Amino acid sequence: MNAMGATGVPEVVTVGLGERSYHILIGKGLIERAGTEIAARLPGVRAAIVTDGNVAAAWLPALTDSLSKAGIETVAITLPPGEKTKSFEHLEQVVDGVLGARLERRDAVIALGGGVIGDLTGFAAGIVRRGMNFVQVPTSLLAQVDSSVGGKTGINTPRGKNLVGVFMQPKLVIADTGTLDTLSEREFRAGYAEVAKYGLIDRPDFFAWLEANWQEVFSGGPARTRAIAVSCQAKADVVARDEFETGDRALLNLGHTFGHALEAATAYDSARLVHGEGVAIGMALAHRFSARMNLASLDDAERVERHLRDVGLPWRMSDVPGELPGAERLLEYISQDKKVSRGALTFILTRGIGQSFIAKDVPASEVLSFLRENLL
Amino acid sequence: MNAMGATGVPEVVTVGLGERSYHILIGKGLIERAGTEIAARLPGVRAAIVTDGNVAAAWLPALTDSLSKAGIETVAITLPPGEKTKSFEHLEQVVDGVLGARLERRDAVIALGGGVIGDLTGFAAGIVRRGMNFVQVPTSLLAQVDSSVGGKTGINTPRGKNLVGVFMQPKLVIADTGTLDTLSEREFRAGYAEVAKYGLIDRPDFFAWLEANWQEVFSGGPARTRAIAVSCQAKADVVARDEFETGDRALLNLGHTFGHALEAATAYDSARLVHGEGVAIGMALAHRFSARMNLASLDDAERVERHLRDVGLPWRMSDVPGELPGAERLLEYISQDKKVSRGALTFILTRGIGQSFIAKDVPASEVLSFLRENLL
Ligand SMILES: NC(=O)c1ccc[n+]([C@@H]2O[C@H](COP(=O)([O-])OP(=O)(O)OC[C@H]3O[C@@H](n4cnc5c(N)ncnc54)[C@H](O)[C@@H]3O)[C@@H](O)[C@H]2O)c1
Ligand SMILES: NC(=O)c1ccc[n+]([C@@H]2O[C@H](COP(=O)([O-])OP(=O)(O)OC[C@H]3O[C@@H](n4cnc5c(N)ncnc54)[C@H](O)[C@@H]3O)[C@@H](O)[C@H]2O)c1
Ligand SMILES: [Zn+2]
Ligand SMILES: [Zn+2]
Repeated sequence: MNAMGATGVPEVVTVGLGERSYHILIGKGLIERAGTEIAARLPGVRAAIVTDGNVAAAWLPALTDSLSKAGIETVAITLPPGEKTKSFEHLEQVVDGVLGARLERRDAVIALGGGVIGDLTGFAAGIVRRGMNFVQVPTSLLAQVDSSVGGKTGINTPRGKNLVGVFMQPKLVIADTGTLDTLSEREFRAGYAEVAKYGLIDRPDFFAWLEANWQEVFSGGPARTRAIAVSCQAKADVVARDEFETGDRALLNLGHTFGHALEAATAYDSARLVHGEGVAIGMALAHRFSARMNLASLDDAERVERHLRDVGLPWRMSDVPGELPGAERLLEYISQDKKVSRGALTFILTRGIGQSFIAKDVPASEVLSFLRENLL
Repeated sequence: MNAMGATGVPEVVTVGLGERSYHILIGKGLIERAGTEIAARLPGVRAAIVTDGNVAAAWLPALTDSLSKAGIETVAITLPPGEKTKSFEHLEQVVDGVLGARLERRDAVIALGGGVIGDLTGFAAGIVRRGMNFVQVPTSLLAQVDSSVGGKTGINTPRGKNLVGVFMQPKLVIADTGTLDTLSEREFRAGYAEVAKYGLIDRPDFFAWLEANWQEVFSGGPARTRAIAVSCQAKADVVARDEFETGDRALLNLGHTFGHALEAATAYDSARLVHGEGVAIGMALAHRFSARMNLASLDDAERVERHLRDVGLPWRMSDVPGELPGAERLLEYISQDKKVSRGALTFILTRGIGQSFIAKDVPASEVLSFLRENLL
């Protein structure tokens, strides 16, 4: 076990993308070293730090200090927290802030925050002067294990979520696991759903390890750093195989088809459901549906449900507070999300823990009956 | 000489960028074949055609017909003509139009128009769903020989021109030289400055050929197709060497440093100066300045001036209607455009016709004296 705090040495995951390869550094207290790490890779840069109000209050002074000690001059652009910030309006604001600071193409744009800030900032960094240097300092668990890795960036439009953006790989990701101490417990737990997801996709040993060690992941011991590092490695492996999402990368959507339908059905009202909660229920449903299709055993589905319940995540549709629409309506949300060809849907299904696969011909009728049974 | 109209076979220039390589087809009447050419390369696509009011009136029905005959369903998005259209506002409009037409990532966005439409549309195609298929149908001479080749796209912001965008290579460029018949003579001539530029950069034979054949280029004979094909090849060669503009691609800026200063000095008022006219004067100045620095002969500078004058382009600062600011102010515009390090400027200078090079240490003081002399 090599976990910072224990040994003072961060874990390093390499995202292998040829010339665009980069490091993800993971460890407690890493923000203090952000300046040195950035200066070592991007000598002589100036930087704009983009963040949101919540994160700025807790972590902006530490990051600014660290950069300034390494001789990196910064300006900060602080935006309102929340999903609504992923808009054209705020994109324009970030672009203008970066240009207003007279940063050049070889300077850096740094995202300090959760997935919202990371997605928006990466997009801005990808388009100002047709691409500047981009650094991620993710501060939510979801951002550390998922959104900061892999180079997808973007914003929402009235036509849908994440429909506009670029692939923009960062030059460096600095995941300070200590920043998660100021994250709300609910947001932490939601991010944990994505951690468990990597075990369920293709790392059965990791899932078993999580069953044994999740408490320490939550409390912030070395197991937290370890869980984040394994998650980053898992995502990095998929991304290296399929950077532009033309194939295998779809595996990362395990639990997301059902999950997105539930998010849509609750009108993206975070009081009722946040993304990771939807994913948790979605993963449980994907396993149960796979069992129903005789692909996996019911035991495995129950094992998934048990773990999600243990950590305090919702795992069945009745866990969503308030009314849900009927099965037909949910199926419509699913069909909007996925391309439907002649009544067949694409889903990530599984043959058991850690044995997920892309299933391209799932009959919509089977999904409908399954939803009916599970809404009872 | 292989020119469509003469032989019915288009000229084909290949932009060699590995997996992202594509063809530029050049010939008279090519729009009629656009549908077949696109369908052959992108089977089964639907398409959004983005254009401006002027171009739509002349060429949209022909393009729509051609696509429809090839079984390609289209929607058209028609924007106001003019440089102001390269804005965040219109970018959002195009993005929304493409999404509103329910186009998928594998569908196509087609730019039908000059450089303004090409730059804006390419940017939109690069960001909707993180990159759709993009096709250029350039209709101005400048767009056919310059902006549609090489994958630079973007918009302007209040902070400056072309500061925001992406590198987005098209899947195909269809340059119908017949579309130039409806272009104003002034716009055609301005585009011709960029044609002459390729000769001056590194193709002395091409420049000599232009001196002999420019009349047929203007009148629309086979020499027009030839001139456009050679220009595309010249740009394609530079782009293949330096796709992301980290070195050699700067040669394409021959004439542009002085030119941009003049555009800024005339407040981008197209009644006084359009881009190609600024470039024409800029190229003449670059040659004369190179002679003054004892890099090239005065004869070559005069040969350049003579050719520009012959085709009816402005070639000296006094050709700009209205007052110009003084030399100091012009130098300020130049310094804003280029990075200045300790009083030294980067310019594209020359050792003679077709022997341009990147000069990194041009003393600002020399430029200032030169401007003073030439403003008299
Ligand atoms: N790019 C990708 O590949 C990818 C992958 C998954 C999700 N996403 C995107 O990520 C977004 C969700 O990310 P998120 O869950 O991090 O949301 P978020 O950025 O909105 O963060 C959640 C909340 O936690 C707060 N916060 C973050 N870090 C904090 C800290 N250390 N201390 C205190 N408060 C903190 C934020 O201010 C916010 O209120 C969505 O927009 C989603 O589309 C992107
Ligand atoms: N991306 C690049 O590499 C690159 C290179 C050079 C220039 N540019 C950009 O190109 C733009 C200038 O391009 P432009 O000169 O084509 O300007 P433009 O697109 O504004 O076209 C000039 C005018 O001609 C009209 N027009 C175009 N084709 C016509 C036709 N066939 N018939 C009748 N009218 C027609 C247009 O409506 C417009 O009024 C600038 O914004 C510049 O920044 C980009
Ligand atoms: Zn997710
Ligand atoms: Zn030009």
